[in-house]
Amino acid sequence: MAKQKPRTLSGFMELLPAPQAQFERMAELLRQSYARYGFTPLDTPVIEASEVLLAKAGGETEKQIYRFNKGDSDLSLRFDLTVPLAKYVALHYAELSFPFRRFQIGKVYRGERAQRGRFREFYQADIDVIGDGKLDIVNEAEIPAIIYHTFTALGLRRFQVHVNNRKVLSGFYAMLGLTDQSGDIMRIVDKLPKIGPDKVRELLTGGELALPEEQAGEILTFISITGSNQNVLDSLECYRGRHELFDQGLDELNTVVKYLGAFGVPEEHFAVDLTIARGLDYYTGTVYETFMLDHPEIGSICSGGRYDNLAEYYTDKQLPGVGISIGLTRLFYVLEEQGYLNDALITAPADVLVLPMTDDLSPAISLATRLREVGVRTQLYTEPKKFKQKMSYADKLGVPYILLLGEDEIKQGKASLKDMRTGEQELLSADQAVEKILRTLEASRNAPPIREPEKA
Amino acid sequence: MAKQKPRTLSGFMELLPAPQAQFERMAELLRQSYARYGFTPLDTPVIEASEVLLAKAGGETEKQIYRFNKGDSDLSLRFDLTVPLAKYVALHYAELSFPFRRFQIGKVYRGERAQRGRFREFYQADIDVIGDGKLDIVNEAEIPAIIYHTFTALGLRRFQVHVNNRKVLSGFYAMLGLTDQSGDIMRIVDKLPKIGPDKVRELLTGGELALPEEQAGEILTFISITGSNQNVLDSLECYRGRHELFDQGLDELNTVVKYLGAFGVPEEHFAVDLTIARGLDYYTGTVYETFMLDHPEIGSICSGGRYDNLAEYYTDKQLPGVGISIGLTRLFYVLEEQGYLNDALITAPADVLVLPMTDDLSPAISLATRLREVGVRTQLYTEPKKFKQKMSYADKLGVPYILLLGEDEIKQGKASLKDMRTGEQELLSADQAVEKILRTLEASRNAPPIREPEKA
Repeated sequence: MAKQKPRTLSGFMELLPAPQAQFERMAELLRQSYARYGFTPLDTPVIEASEVLLAKAGGETEKQIYRFNKGDSDLSLRFDLTVPLAKYVALHYAELSFPFRRFQIGKVYRGERAQRGRFREFYQADIDVIGDGKLDIVNEAEIPAIIYHTFTALGLRRFQVHVNNRKVLSGFYAMLGLTDQSGDIMRIVDKLPKIGPDKVRELLTGGELALPEEQAGEILTFISITGSNQNVLDSLECYRGRHELFDQGLDELNTVVKYLGAFGVPEEHFAVDLTIARGLDYYTGTVYETFMLDHPEIGSICSGGRYDNLAEYYTDKQLPGVGISIGLTRLFYVLEEQGYLNDALITAPADVLVLPMTDDLSPAISLATRLREVGVRTQLYTEPKKFKQKMSYADKLGVPYILLLGEDEIKQGKASLKDMRTGEQELLSADQAVEKILRTLEASRNAPPIREPEKA
Repeated sequence: MAKQKPRTLSGFMELLPAPQAQFERMAELLRQSYARYGFTPLDTPVIEASEVLLAKAGGETEKQIYRFNKGDSDLSLRFDLTVPLAKYVALHYAELSFPFRRFQIGKVYRGERAQRGRFREFYQADIDVIGDGKLDIVNEAEIPAIIYHTFTALGLRRFQVHVNNRKVLSGFYAMLGLTDQSGDIMRIVDKLPKIGPDKVRELLTGGELALPEEQAGEILTFISITGSNQNVLDSLECYRGRHELFDQGLDELNTVVKYLGAFGVPEEHFAVDLTIARGLDYYTGTVYETFMLDHPEIGSICSGGRYDNLAEYYTDKQLPGVGISIGLTRLFYVLEEQGYLNDALITAPADVLVLPMTDDLSPAISLATRLREVGVRTQLYTEPKKFKQKMSYADKLGVPYILLLGEDEIKQGKASLKDMRTGEQELLSADQAVEKILRTLEASRNAPPIREPEKA
């Protein structure tokens, strides 16, 4: 028979079992962390009616959409989890309680140009808090805590949450009479870390903007405000009283910083950063980006912010919210590339492989059943292969333990437990074996999926 | 602004938060159960190249496919998890260890005619064991144990795994010289539970088949073999020696039944059932169906079997396997319809809602942080609403506890813990509150998602 060559589409991540186990562990820890903060899990369809999904979209986004007809229906695959959330909240408004806190971890689709590290199908892991009409600022203060605890749970240490407030930015540009140009200015200012202040000044005073040197100077002074969070806030106080929106944003920023400690965020994991702007049309208050200190080139690994109108394309209700998103597939790709995956995490499909050495398999099966009943992930190997091949299979899987069961062991009511990492072998009762396996595996089972490489 | 009416496509399940929490709990328990048996989690793309995905498909299946072009690519959404597994194993053959045991829980797509309880996007939860060239019969004996333990973990009690062997069936029809007609005969026999033996006899002796009365009688006698598993096996022994394939199938069936006890499957949850046939072209050995005893009309809730050639459309390697699949979305729908969802399971997004009664929120935030650190799912409610509205919010969410924190409580270093189910309120230290919440919630946290209704 002619064979079809098997292949997986480019831009679609398909992992081998060991890295997949790492990925699953990350997703599991994200679910746990989000649930810890009182978010409810949600799941929405991957396919939506195009008219619904694209009510807002346009330009670049629309080009990337997977859109097609099935029968009479014009359908599209979701390209993020925010638009489906907006639809969900508008559609089920009457049945939800607000503030509505949901998390969703799901695949989204963008037909991007294929290139290394870019994915057309990828997981996003989002949380959002949606208010009905209003939403208290404390929700914005809580987000850095969620980011901090989530990445810490994953095993990441050297990262920092950067926070700004769009009202502070907009208020500042309003002071200078540059409200109309603020979008263009922020796009230039956004490049500061990459191109440096001189080049930024050049772009501000040149081209279509053509700002006077003095205004460019004020902008550069403003975005150069750095130092400890308190230093930045103190410096911003000097601008107070000149514009209402600025003052409001500064109050919000003060509130966010004030509650950090109570939320358990260590100072070194947080920075007020006036260069952060995020999406220009959508966010209206606090905005967040998260950087790996040793890999700033990767960009933000968790971003989001406060918005005023989640579902304006679907409903007249004002639904303000605050949310963040982790691009999980890309993050995983980057962590693997950089050697950040913790190889102390057991990625084998089982904790123990039971190897029967007798024709009647009943004793081996009973042993496996007992192990499974107490929570040990157990695989039974019954293929009629040579002992060496069985051991080689155990080796390849990476199981931490094997349990050998031959006539001698069965007569004694015992089994031989071999630690595959040390090579040690002991004759133990089933109870003793269970106890040893559970005790020694607890640490590696709970190991975080990320381990930062030792610094050179 | 003109609004786009929000809607979700028909045939796409989108749950409210409480049932979604139930669904998530089911999926979590499936993952745990499958992992307990040594299966590794796998994830493959939802989109595949059409030429790859449809290498085997044809007829009814192909009509249901979501197929479309993006750029120059002819793409299709997966319609099951078996074809992607075949592709995966063929593609990554050199990097896998066999037997390869994987589970996958993922969405699949079929453009079926929309009707109540039929879904176009639905989750399948599959396990498969794939051998390289050969696969031992014990793998087939293990499957009923996995089904039994999985449904038991979910909370289902009144169900039974029905098992047959295709070799027994094919061998029997070969004995009668009816090999060529066996497909048609099995399709008729399959209707036995619905139409009864007289109608089956009529179909066998009439129409194109037109079997002699004697052969129809032999078939009816054969498929009427019932009773305890041992009775059925004993009756089958009477046919031994007449056809090699039959004898082989009977040996396999004996092996499967022999090891049931060691695998921990109680006799009453298992039945050898000669009327089970499954897919006619694909399965070659043991086949499985699983029925809810009080709802036979629902049909099988977990089916599968042994096959000889997983990936014949992709590779010359012979890859036999055995697998089962649960249609999770449909199962969930049915369970909800029948009132089988356990309302003792907490579906609120949080175990406790912290309600600050002071302007400075630091003490309440610190309390929430402490609760979260020890694993209590905690939500902080900071909206400036009236007390009554706050309580109504807690009620609607269904949180089991609220913690009130006013000036008095703060002065005493305590908080008022209110049990929302009993209405009782106590003034407790943070430690006491944590202890009480964790202790009382353990049972409802570990509650199974399914609870069978009391029999009338």
